[in-house]
Amino acid sequence: MAAEPLLNQLIEALRCLPGVGPKSAQRMALHLLERNREGGLRLASVLVEAMQKIGRCKQCRDLTELEVCSICASPRRDQSLLCIVESPVDVLAIEQATAYKGRYFVLLGRLSPLDGIGPAELGLDQLAEQLEQNTLEEMIIATNPTVEGEATSYYLQSMAKAQNIKVTCIAHGVPLGGELEYTDQSTLAHAFGRRLLVD
Amino acid sequence: MAAEPLLNQLIEALRCLPGVGPKSAQRMALHLLERNREGGLRLASVLVEAMQKIGRCKQCRDLTELEVCSICASPRRDQSLLCIVESPVDVLAIEQATAYKGRYFVLLGRLSPLDGIGPAELGLDQLAEQLEQNTLEEMIIATNPTVEGEATSYYLQSMAKAQNIKVTCIAHGVPLGGELEYTDQSTLAHAFGRRLLVD
Repeated sequence: MAAEPLLNQLIEALRCLPGVGPKSAQRMALHLLERNREGGLRLASVLVEAMQKIGRCKQCRDLTELEVCSICASPRRDQSLLCIVESPVDVLAIEQATAYKGRYFVLLGRLSPLDGIGPAELGLDQLAEQLEQNTLEEMIIATNPTVEGEATSYYLQSMAKAQNIKVTCIAHGVPLGGELEYTDQSTLAHAFGRRLLVD
Repeated sequence: MAAEPLLNQLIEALRCLPGVGPKSAQRMALHLLERNREGGLRLASVLVEAMQKIGRCKQCRDLTELEVCSICASPRRDQSLLCIVESPVDVLAIEQATAYKGRYFVLLGRLSPLDGIGPAELGLDQLAEQLEQNTLEEMIIATNPTVEGEATSYYLQSMAKAQNIKVTCIAHGVPLGGELEYTDQSTLAHAFGRRLLVD
């Protein structure tokens, strides 16, 4: 390679980011070097701190640099509502889109016996302990509507029913602003089958 | 915000990268935290080193952590060929696409009097010194085919002619693999006007 070793190293290192190929990495490296060295240095220091300090919340398994994440620790969150999600991204998405004020439980995956992911890997024993404390009024299941997500959902439903806790699932159907014409068949079939009575 | 401060800081810091909006930054942060902490730490250390050490080559103004970049310092590069480009990305692009074995001169911009960018800002006095040394046989102009790039090209052509140095410009026209139907009008008109005799 004719280009400079350190520049090459930077381009290579940037490719650890998801969705960043050789061309984007090159553009990013040159952008930082030519226009935003301060931003680059700041990114580096935050990266080190985040990679070293961020762990899992003891209670909900979400990403946090604290022992218990700020949502679990907050006295303003409703302790009687628990929303189960697959990943930390889902927590961010729900926080940004909704006014939900309960707590979360992050599975960090979905049931997938073929990949060796069973209830233990998803922290479901930890969840069972929380359900046994009898403080929950409603468990909201927000796993992804995929085959494995649905399987996980059924497992969670049976766990909640065993403790007589009310279970709900977030609604699946045609997205708002979407058009029936462009909605995939399985979504449309699901939406049609689960049509609601208008009163 | 309900999410964790350090995670938020990381998402915010990642947005200094070009083309990275809030959603991509979120995805990148979670990807690094969940799957590639080592890559994140490595990126951080390379970033610090690059931001602090990479400067400009004394001879060609390209980005390098050395005093003189590896292309200028290489005894295997042809000292009689000089390719003028606008930016370090152009050097990378030419190195990756062609078998060019001469040296480069990086303008770091293009003539744009309205923005206060004149010959001095582009290091053209430095280039003039190099032209006066009479070691050049050919100057290859590879500025971008934009209005400002063309103006810069004319200026460079007059500089080379004053020293009796042969000047060439890279060809502009319909891109290979492109279709005439989808080629923009000005490119097609240019390609048509500059048609070559087939012998």
